[in-house]
Formats: sequence, C-alpha cells, structure tokens
Amino acid sequence: MTRTIGVDVGGTKVAAALVDGDGHVQTRARRSSASRDYQGLLDAVTGTVEEAAAGESVDAVGLAIAGNVTADGSSVLFSPHLPLSGEPLQVDLQNRLGCPVTVDNDANAAAWAEFQFGSHGATDDLLLVAVGTGIGAGIVIGGALYRGSNGFAGEAGHMTVVRDGRVCPCGSRGCWERYASGTALLAAYLERGGNPELGGPDITTAALAGDGTAREALTDIGDWLGRGLSSLVAVVDPGAVIVGGGVSEAGALLLDPALKAFRSNLTGRGRRPEPAITAARLGVDAGVIGAAALAGHHVK
Amino acid sequence: MTRTIGVDVGGTKVAAALVDGDGHVQTRARRSSASRDYQGLLDAVTGTVEEAAAGESVDAVGLAIAGNVTADGSSVLFSPHLPLSGEPLQVDLQNRLGCPVTVDNDANAAAWAEFQFGSHGATDDLLLVAVGTGIGAGIVIGGALYRGSNGFAGEAGHMTVVRDGRVCPCGSRGCWERYASGTALLAAYLERGGNPELGGPDITTAALAGDGTAREALTDIGDWLGRGLSSLVAVVDPGAVIVGGGVSEAGALLLDPALKAFRSNLTGRGRRPEPAITAARLGVDAGVIGAAALAGHHVK
Repeated sequence: MTRTIGVDVGGTKVAAALVDGDGHVQTRARRSSASRDYQGLLDAVTGTVEEAAAGESVDAVGLAIAGNVTADGSSVLFSPHLPLSGEPLQVDLQNRLGCPVTVDNDANAAAWAEFQFGSHGATDDLLLVAVGTGIGAGIVIGGALYRGSNGFAGEAGHMTVVRDGRVCPCGSRGCWERYASGTALLAAYLERGGNPELGGPDITTAALAGDGTAREALTDIGDWLGRGLSSLVAVVDPGAVIVGGGVSEAGALLLDPALKAFRSNLTGRGRRPEPAITAARLGVDAGVIGAAALAGHHVK
Repeated sequence: MTRTIGVDVGGTKVAAALVDGDGHVQTRARRSSASRDYQGLLDAVTGTVEEAAAGESVDAVGLAIAGNVTADGSSVLFSPHLPLSGEPLQVDLQNRLGCPVTVDNDANAAAWAEFQFGSHGATDDLLLVAVGTGIGAGIVIGGALYRGSNGFAGEAGHMTVVRDGRVCPCGSRGCWERYASGTALLAAYLERGGNPELGGPDITTAALAGDGTAREALTDIGDWLGRGLSSLVAVVDPGAVIVGGGVSEAGALLLDPALKAFRSNLTGRGRRPEPAITAARLGVDAGVIGAAALAGHHVK
C-alpha cells in the first residue's frame, strides 16, 4: 500500500490528510496558516504532513494550492493570498520531506478528486467550479486533468462578465468572481441591508436557517453563477458540471437559481444535450483527497 | 498518395478542393448554396466533390460545416444557416460518394488546418477564433482537436459578455458575437453614420482604403474581440491564439485594438506567459484544407 498525504494550502489554513487509494481520509492535521513568508509556509506544510503521518513513513505528498502553478508543477508563479512568487517549492519540500512531492492548483485537485471518487456519472470530461472567496475551475478532459500550456487553465473566475465592472484583485474589472463568489455574497447581502457583522459562511448559515435577506443574496449570486456556467459550457462542453467550494454548502439555495439562469442562457438549449450540474460530493476534503490522488499517481 | 477532398459548407456557398498531404490546394470547385432543403445540400456537396475530383477517384471526403456536429461526426443537430437537423449526413454522403466521409464543425476544421499547416509556433494547445458573420472557435489540445462531450465545444461566440444585452439568433442575449463579429461590424459602422449600402466585407475594404468611419467600427469590434479573448485564454490557457474568418482580412485594423484590449484585460498579466495572437495564415482556404486533413487522417 502506498502511503500518500494530501495537503490543501489556502489563504487561511493548511490542512493535511493521509488518504487511502479509495479516497478515504485516514488521519488529519490542520493549522491556521503561519505563512507570512515562504519559510513559514514550508514549516506549516512540513508540520502538518508530519502530524498526519503520525510517526510512520510516507511514500508521496501532494499539494493543492490556491495559486498559479507552473505546468511542470515545480513552482507557484503567483498567488493573491500566499507568499509565493516563483520559489522552487517542489524541490524545497522534497528536500525537507524526503519523498516525491507534487504541486497542483487547488481547483485542479478538487476536480480530480470528484472525477476519481465523486458521483458525476459516466463522463471523461468534467468541469468543477469551486465557489469560495473567489472562483476557480478544474477541467478534466478525456479522463486527464487539463492544465493548459502554462499550467493556468481554468481561471474561469476571471472571465469578464461586466465590461468595466467591479474592480478585481487580479488587476482587471468585471470578473465573474466579483459577482458570483463568497465575496459577492457578502456584497449582495450588505447591499440588501444585511447584518454587517456576518461573514460569508454566516450568511450561508443564516440562509439555511430561513433568513430572507441571506436567501435573496444567495439567489443573486446563484443567478450570476448560472450565467457564467452557460458561457463555460458553451466553450468546454463538459459531460458534467460540479459546483464545489465553501459557498456550495448552501446547496439548493445556490444551485436552484444557478440552474435556472444556466438553462435560460445556454446557447442551443433544447437542441443539445445539457450537462448535469450538481453539488460536489467531497466537500471541503476535495483538495486533500485530490492532491493525495495526484501524488499517488506519480509513485505508482 | 491518398486523394482527399475537403468541402466547406457555409450559409452562402459550398466550396470543395482536392488537397495534398502538405495542405496545398490542387483543384477547386465552388457553387453558391442551393441548399434550401436537405436533398439540395447533398446535391451541392456531391456536385462540387465530383467537379474537384476532375474525373479521378477519391479516397476520402471531409466536410467542414457551420453547425453543431455530433461528437461521432455522423450528423448535424442544428445549424442556423443550413437545412440540417439530425439527418444521417455522413452515411447519406458515403452512399452517394462511395468513399469514407468525415463531418466536422467549420471552426474545428480551420483550427486543425492552422495547427497542421499554419505558423503558430511550437505549441500543442491552440485556439482558433473565426470571426465571420458570427464567431466560432476551434480548440486543439495536446495536439488533437477537442470536441467536447457532445461535439459542441468551442461555441465561444455565445459566451455572454453583456448581461441582458443584444438579442442573438441562438436564443440568448448579450452573446460575444453580437459585439465582435462581422454582424457587429455592420452595426457599429451604421451607428456611426456609415453608408447603409455597404455590407461587412465592403466596410473592411473601405477601412483598408482609409475610411475613418469604417476604421472606427473595426476598432470598436476589435476591442470587444480582445476582451472576449482574455476570458477565453483565462479558461483555456492556449499556447497560441489565431484569429481567422472573413473579418480577419482587416488585419492590423482589427488585431491591434484586439491585442490592446486583450492585454488590458487578461488576468494575471505581467505574471504569466501570454500567448501570441496572430492572424490566420490559410485565409478562406482553412475550412477545405482542415476538412481534407481530418478526412485523410481517418483513411491513413
């Protein structure tokens, strides 16, 4: 048995898990990100891996990371939330951990996890859209992860949906994620006079508990979500679409308006098969599971 | 030597050509489309093929067709300009022509031609955007044409760029091709008080001759073209982008504003490699050349 650990490195936490070959999490370790600098990030990854390994040897480690990973998986060129800008991350971690390390984008890892272990039906072409603070996408084509020429494919959150629209941290304006992410949820909720003390996850909790303002805000971003999905499906024509990320915890409150908008905007609707759009099955574990599966792939 | 004929079936013409293995056109035949019905379309294809064959035998025929071709290439589910809605086109033509026939979308065929015989540099991931009456896209991934789960990938002209924007014949609103195609060029030209007697190609000719109004109209649609390309590149991350289709005959008058808008809108710009955006090399022959190459592929 290959012992493989997946690590999900986000802006606010580092989570590691020992994952078996069927995608089941065996042990977990987690810490809030102590990653104000590169060495601290290496320390946090190494520390959680050692904790998840629980004293036993590890054959491979896979990282899922919120950033632009180079096509060869050696480095992260840019991340809005992490202190990474081209350092030799893969080699540095291999030296510290003494085993093969793979590095991948977090949406790619989640897409791979859902493709391998999720419930998307029988398709080799799958699109995962992760709706969190921003929007990322992972694309599986012909049963393999599609990374693009430079490793940056799937930056769907930065499709322009409003010309000269809301300013985006990426440097552009009118990006999809400014209208359909957790950040947009907060904006839509405040716009409607919602409680300014709530954060994104609290708004989802309030909506699930029946709060009308929170539900309207989810309907608003769900509508934008569906519109963007119709553009993505026009280009990629996947066999299935999976919506993951933290905001997808809202379930039907997000997906119902998204489906409605998707169906009203998809080109050729009624004269073409439409992909099913479903919620991710693996939830917040998708990153570690996918990262472990991608790492295990390399040592098999 | 395989004798292969490519046929480009558009809304206003059927063009056939005998194409050699290096993508060079040997003989041509052309007729304006007599395709008010399905039998007429079969007649037009058969007639041009026989004319291009010039009395000699043919090993394979490839069709490039402006419509939604099923993934298995057997049929066209829908075409806004042609009398096709699910007939067994491939089998019917094979019976008439007595040789293997392949059917592909016209933007796919053009992308394949540019990939095989164009000047895109060394990449296996290429995006061709054909700007004509509408906008189509062909995507080459890993050296193979990417058709999507249902055969409809690359319908990039129907990405929504303006919420509730201009009405599109596809049934949606605000589609990219309503702002960046030949149809949009005509609208932009008329909006600026241009000569209402000119058609799209005349406007390009006028612009190339120095007409200020025509140039402004091209700048307008070029700007929209570049904005859409930045969204497409964010998702697909191709190694090269090729702009083809009739409107690309305007050259720099279209591509310069497109490049400017692309560079101002691409996410992560300055922190990532950017694909070169160049004009198609094969011009109006891309469809027949790509169709022939795809057909030859099958009989080799």
